[in-house]
Amino acid sequence: MSHSTVDLSVGHSCPVPINNYKHVLLAHGGGGKLTQQLIQKMFAPQFENELLSPLHDGAVFSINGTRLALSTDSFVVNPIFFPGGTIGDLAVNGTVNDLAMCGAKPLYLSAAFIIEEGMTMEDLWRVVLSMKEATDRAGVVLVTGDTKVVDRKKGDKIFINTSGVGVMEQGVDINPANARPGDVVILSGPIALHGIAIMSVREGLEFETEICSDTAPLNGLVQDMLKASKDIHVLRDPTRGGIASALNEIAESAGVGILIREEHIPVPDEVRGACEILGLDPLYVANEGKLLAIVPRESAQEVLRAMQAHPMGKDAVVIGQVMVENPGIVLMKSRVGGTRVVDMLSGEQLPRIC
Amino acid sequence: MSHSTVDLSVGHSCPVPINNYKHVLLAHGGGGKLTQQLIQKMFAPQFENELLSPLHDGAVFSINGTRLALSTDSFVVNPIFFPGGTIGDLAVNGTVNDLAMCGAKPLYLSAAFIIEEGMTMEDLWRVVLSMKEATDRAGVVLVTGDTKVVDRKKGDKIFINTSGVGVMEQGVDINPANARPGDVVILSGPIALHGIAIMSVREGLEFETEICSDTAPLNGLVQDMLKASKDIHVLRDPTRGGIASALNEIAESAGVGILIREEHIPVPDEVRGACEILGLDPLYVANEGKLLAIVPRESAQEVLRAMQAHPMGKDAVVIGQVMVENPGIVLMKSRVGGTRVVDMLSGEQLPRIC
Repeated sequence: MSHSTVDLSVGHSCPVPINNYKHVLLAHGGGGKLTQQLIQKMFAPQFENELLSPLHDGAVFSINGTRLALSTDSFVVNPIFFPGGTIGDLAVNGTVNDLAMCGAKPLYLSAAFIIEEGMTMEDLWRVVLSMKEATDRAGVVLVTGDTKVVDRKKGDKIFINTSGVGVMEQGVDINPANARPGDVVILSGPIALHGIAIMSVREGLEFETEICSDTAPLNGLVQDMLKASKDIHVLRDPTRGGIASALNEIAESAGVGILIREEHIPVPDEVRGACEILGLDPLYVANEGKLLAIVPRESAQEVLRAMQAHPMGKDAVVIGQVMVENPGIVLMKSRVGGTRVVDMLSGEQLPRIC
Repeated sequence: MSHSTVDLSVGHSCPVPINNYKHVLLAHGGGGKLTQQLIQKMFAPQFENELLSPLHDGAVFSINGTRLALSTDSFVVNPIFFPGGTIGDLAVNGTVNDLAMCGAKPLYLSAAFIIEEGMTMEDLWRVVLSMKEATDRAGVVLVTGDTKVVDRKKGDKIFINTSGVGVMEQGVDINPANARPGDVVILSGPIALHGIAIMSVREGLEFETEICSDTAPLNGLVQDMLKASKDIHVLRDPTRGGIASALNEIAESAGVGILIREEHIPVPDEVRGACEILGLDPLYVANEGKLLAIVPRESAQEVLRAMQAHPMGKDAVVIGQVMVENPGIVLMKSRVGGTRVVDMLSGEQLPRIC
């Protein structure tokens, strides 16, 4: 009989590395400052290795000379059905996109379900059907899975983890740390749709035009971008915490400043209206079918044209640039001319958005 | 703005494929008949592809000529700390073992946490430390992760998904469907320790000797077995549902009968006693550091010797054989001489054991 040798005492020799919070808060899962603190103090030092890049969307490694990417995400969105999508296609698109943001071609996915006792079979079936459609749309294959059931009130209908393996495109080196002064910041389209679609359902808001989640696979768009130029420094899908948090992570990883221009950032009118009602800043609201690309000035036009020629990037625009000044900081030039710091999200703006 | 095209209606055209249950029950996650029904009716037909082998522990595929395995598991064990282990090392060992059961050498793991708001940082830290120790022990590298937080009473302290990638050993073809009449069934050591360790804590039972979970990585053992002989037909770690369910899945996958001998199955005395108190059959109780191997008679002695020479397999024994008769059925010859059918677990014996 083998016994585990794990020492469960966490006394004097190895104190808990976070002492300003005794308990985990919702904000620790919000994608902002507290999530970063949790990752950087509690997880990253323990699992430190050359492949673990805490602020990247996945890990890249070689097996027998083939460069592969591995990514994982758990989805806990509430509600599980919302305008434009379900937790099922969100889960497929989320991992497809994380792999694409590494510069990988997503190939194989796993799906693991944690179901709350009492979920209706009909709801589960709707989720499964939506996942099937999403895998077909993204051109990936779901190859393995797992199902667990937890007691009532120990879960919330369904949580889905997807993990995925992709093969890296040749000659590609995409990483948040690669942003360089002079680079151009491109955004693939209008922001904040996913978060506002979810919040509208939760808050019972109705608009003239229904606001739909933008959940979609971005691997096709990324492939076209890489065909236009391999010289892309950073790709990022601005999900939890919105484009503000994504840009802050990039600025911090690369030790550069980023300046964006408010007037260039596309925010649909109905989204802006909903944000005003809900007291939200669209820069911090989650997207599930958009990407940020940071590319050298020389290749920016080619990449932008390739994006605009693809259905997922037809509204792509340049929103800013990377600077040598103010390393680690994101600044925004407002419509009226002033410049303000766009900080990392500090609290929890939108719990359980993905 | 892209809208999802998922049709959420599941009306007449595509009826829910399970109609004898309107809701998901705990037993649908128990690893027995209802779990099989859920997988085979709801998941498998939708995601049908040549790589998806619903009753295997992972998927095997080739990328650029390299054969790889991908596996995923979510862990929802309650309590999260128990004699011999934590949810953290269970999560690492579980995916390491699933990859090993495919005949793969586990290399890279992802970890995704779903934390209930209010979990103490100290408990989270204990979990992280135990995962770190487990990855070191198994010789795998945790390369990417994800953290979500859900509201109180929408989770239960912490759920952990691990997914993993391994590289297949050369010339190996291990699959539940490969069991052949005449093959020998080997068990790596005493059964039911993990399940009884968990149940003892939950039920507040105390024994003279504390019963500890057997959670442990089996990849080293499998490597030694494959060094002894590549000709291993099936490997299986009998977790949820115990050795009874694992053998039933193999019998069904391969279309063979399996006969085991009760007197050869090692059940520690204290486990047998606990099973009697709890009304459990040790054949159905989960193991987290044991494996079943089905090997051709010619290589059985070599494989058995290799197992007995490894710390994880020192108590390995032959417990039965594969038969042409009674395809899909597992029979057990009892100590007193009679023979009975060892059926698949039908209800939920031990919820949230892993």
